[in-house]
Amino acid sequence: MTSTPITPNDWDTSTLFPEIETITDPVQVTKLSQDYHTFSPILQPKLAGKTGDVVVRPVNEAQVIQVAAACVKYKIPLTVRGAGTGNYGQCVPLHGGVILDMTRIQEILWVKPGVARVEAGVKLAQLDKKAREIGWEMRMAPSTYRTATIGGFIAGGSGGIGSINYGLLGDRGNLLALKVITMEDQPRVIELRGDDVQKVNHAWGVNGIITELEIPLAAAYPWAEIIVTFHDFMTAAKFGQALADADGMIKKLICITAWPIPSYFVALRSYLPDNTHAALLMVSETSLEPLQDLVAEFGGKITYQKLAQDAGKGFHLAEFTWNHTTLHARNVDTSLTYLQSVFPPDKSLSLVEELYHHFGDEVMMHLEFLRVGGIAVPAGLQVIRFTTEERLNEIIHYHEARGIFVPNPHVHILEDGGRKTVDVAQVKFKEMVDPYGLMNPGKMRGWMERA
Amino acid sequence: MTSTPITPNDWDTSTLFPEIETITDPVQVTKLSQDYHTFSPILQPKLAGKTGDVVVRPVNEAQVIQVAAACVKYKIPLTVRGAGTGNYGQCVPLHGGVILDMTRIQEILWVKPGVARVEAGVKLAQLDKKAREIGWEMRMAPSTYRTATIGGFIAGGSGGIGSINYGLLGDRGNLLALKVITMEDQPRVIELRGDDVQKVNHAWGVNGIITELEIPLAAAYPWAEIIVTFHDFMTAAKFGQALADADGMIKKLICITAWPIPSYFVALRSYLPDNTHAALLMVSETSLEPLQDLVAEFGGKITYQKLAQDAGKGFHLAEFTWNHTTLHARNVDTSLTYLQSVFPPDKSLSLVEELYHHFGDEVMMHLEFLRVGGIAVPAGLQVIRFTTEERLNEIIHYHEARGIFVPNPHVHILEDGGRKTVDVAQVKFKEMVDPYGLMNPGKMRGWMERA
Repeated sequence: MTSTPITPNDWDTSTLFPEIETITDPVQVTKLSQDYHTFSPILQPKLAGKTGDVVVRPVNEAQVIQVAAACVKYKIPLTVRGAGTGNYGQCVPLHGGVILDMTRIQEILWVKPGVARVEAGVKLAQLDKKAREIGWEMRMAPSTYRTATIGGFIAGGSGGIGSINYGLLGDRGNLLALKVITMEDQPRVIELRGDDVQKVNHAWGVNGIITELEIPLAAAYPWAEIIVTFHDFMTAAKFGQALADADGMIKKLICITAWPIPSYFVALRSYLPDNTHAALLMVSETSLEPLQDLVAEFGGKITYQKLAQDAGKGFHLAEFTWNHTTLHARNVDTSLTYLQSVFPPDKSLSLVEELYHHFGDEVMMHLEFLRVGGIAVPAGLQVIRFTTEERLNEIIHYHEARGIFVPNPHVHILEDGGRKTVDVAQVKFKEMVDPYGLMNPGKMRGWMERA
Repeated sequence: MTSTPITPNDWDTSTLFPEIETITDPVQVTKLSQDYHTFSPILQPKLAGKTGDVVVRPVNEAQVIQVAAACVKYKIPLTVRGAGTGNYGQCVPLHGGVILDMTRIQEILWVKPGVARVEAGVKLAQLDKKAREIGWEMRMAPSTYRTATIGGFIAGGSGGIGSINYGLLGDRGNLLALKVITMEDQPRVIELRGDDVQKVNHAWGVNGIITELEIPLAAAYPWAEIIVTFHDFMTAAKFGQALADADGMIKKLICITAWPIPSYFVALRSYLPDNTHAALLMVSETSLEPLQDLVAEFGGKITYQKLAQDAGKGFHLAEFTWNHTTLHARNVDTSLTYLQSVFPPDKSLSLVEELYHHFGDEVMMHLEFLRVGGIAVPAGLQVIRFTTEERLNEIIHYHEARGIFVPNPHVHILEDGGRKTVDVAQVKFKEMVDPYGLMNPGKMRGWMERA
């Protein structure tokens, strides 16, 4: 066993997997070694030039086992990826080797009322569409649901649109089972069920190759998309909290953005008057009428509304929320970056208010409401005018000093992001399934620093 | 206008409504003048002998208007009732007159995804069954759903099975529209939508005859019924709170009963070992596997489980919860009564623990978890060993002094129960629609004490 990275040796990238689609073109390989860590001006230089040596694209479990066995035999680092829509550089290979692209393993094995079994490369939108055919839908999805894979979402995501109802992916019940291929001398197939899934959940692919997943579904609603604007930011924020807490109103998305963030939503500009703050919402059609009363109570104005039957037409409002908000901002101004934060429960949103006034336009407020332990709180995906790393850290510390949890997106170590502490169960599982430390090396502190 | 009760005068009960089914048999009339205020040893003597003079059973809106017009013409008190499954004596006529039985007006007008339009006399189970045919279900229902009517539930209920997800009936969005017939000289039909429904919601039928309702539905889940037992009551209670707060687990019912309450559930005794405390649950089938992990974490034991496909077989677990818990207790021992209470948010349940130990078996702990303003809290429907009215009031005050809200079920005045204060909008609406104060007279303090 070793905790130091292994460099390629004694293998020919182009001929190692004769039966499996292999990409060696450097431009392609470089592209498939990337994710959205590029949102971070700190990670950009740190991860610059980090690429795999070869990309392999198996089409079934047998081929994945072949790849695993070869990597073990030659001690080649292996980095698993889906669509690469995550952040933290979590699927950027720090030590070259094989990039295992799972996107061709994309069969929906079955969908039953309340649960689906899928292969890891299935796109979230694809599963959602299939589930909807029988009246169900994904409980939650990131704003990248059209391209993101379910395997990547579980390995590196945390929640998203729908989290206002079902909390985060790590919450018990939001992932029913996982099948992983080990990186042992004789790769094995292991099925994890129940709480055991947490051994692999959000572990950035360091401890087993996820090939299949059993995902619980939500009973589907017809979702309307709505934009509401407000003249005052805190009124918009408190409207968001009130909607989050309105038990009689069914919602899936409550995104609140302070001006000038709405100015970055080019495609939505006609619905977003200058100097107004915007709520981007998904609400069940049945709740549209009560929504009007809530909007009136807060003095907001509904500027846009699309019914579920038109969901496929025009833009998708969800694609302006969560991490897409930052994407749109950076499309206008690449000097912008972002923060991730979760506010403690406080219906008065006093910390949001303090920070909004304290930082002004340097830290533009972007809130996504979600449930944490049964209570709706705002997560902040603040858009930041970046100046220096020191100032960015100062901003982060200012938040942390006030009890705001910051899953820092400017680091590339698993535990330094959202987890903060070493997950002993995940490290122990890695000891079993990846004894040579070949999987995504350099990302898990608990592995690198173990006795 | 008058605020004093009106007594029958100048009318013949048997001939007033020749085209409408009329019941004058005193035994029948007495029976149809009752509700479940009989759970209260305080209300029993107070409301003893209070009956209507005649029961009328119209079959459509035109007949309701006839009844309304006649009552106005002759200044006859009118008390509207559904199945009479409520409490507080809310449909017991204090001043005789006409009992308007709505149970024959029971057409389901339409059911669409997310919403249904029904006549007031539709039984909750009947609507639920119809909604389920297209994949939807009622958001919440009392334990009396098999007999209770939707009109009665709205006029006098507050929540129930499902409230852990959708809060209470009074929460914005849980009732979309109401149609009422007025008691003016020329009775009118009025449709209330949006927030305006609160003018009539839970007003005990004092301000307009509800004839139709538009009810939002929930997307349906296959619900499993489960009994879990615990050796320690507070462990059971904390398990209940943990399940309530588990955002990744879908549930509809979390009922926790302290021993000896389970001993009153005669039909369930084989699943309820002596001296154990019981959780009666409805959980979506997909959440059964994670439930096992949660039960294990709290050291509980699953003693009974029924899948959704068998919902129609054997007993209905929900019929041992909410007010049915008290019913079963009183079936064994008629000296028992109950309390209604809502605990403030506190995940540690310290008040529950204090009261459990303070009162011992005198106030047997029965908790139903529900959402209040977005937060899951336990409501108490404690079973009480009644001794004297003074002691009962002492118990109530002991709770209230600790910040526990008590919708006192031992009073027969609307505001003295759950509301506590006069609802000005409801009184004003009554001024318009019932200018002669004929509807359920003697129940609304805000009307009796108005200037």
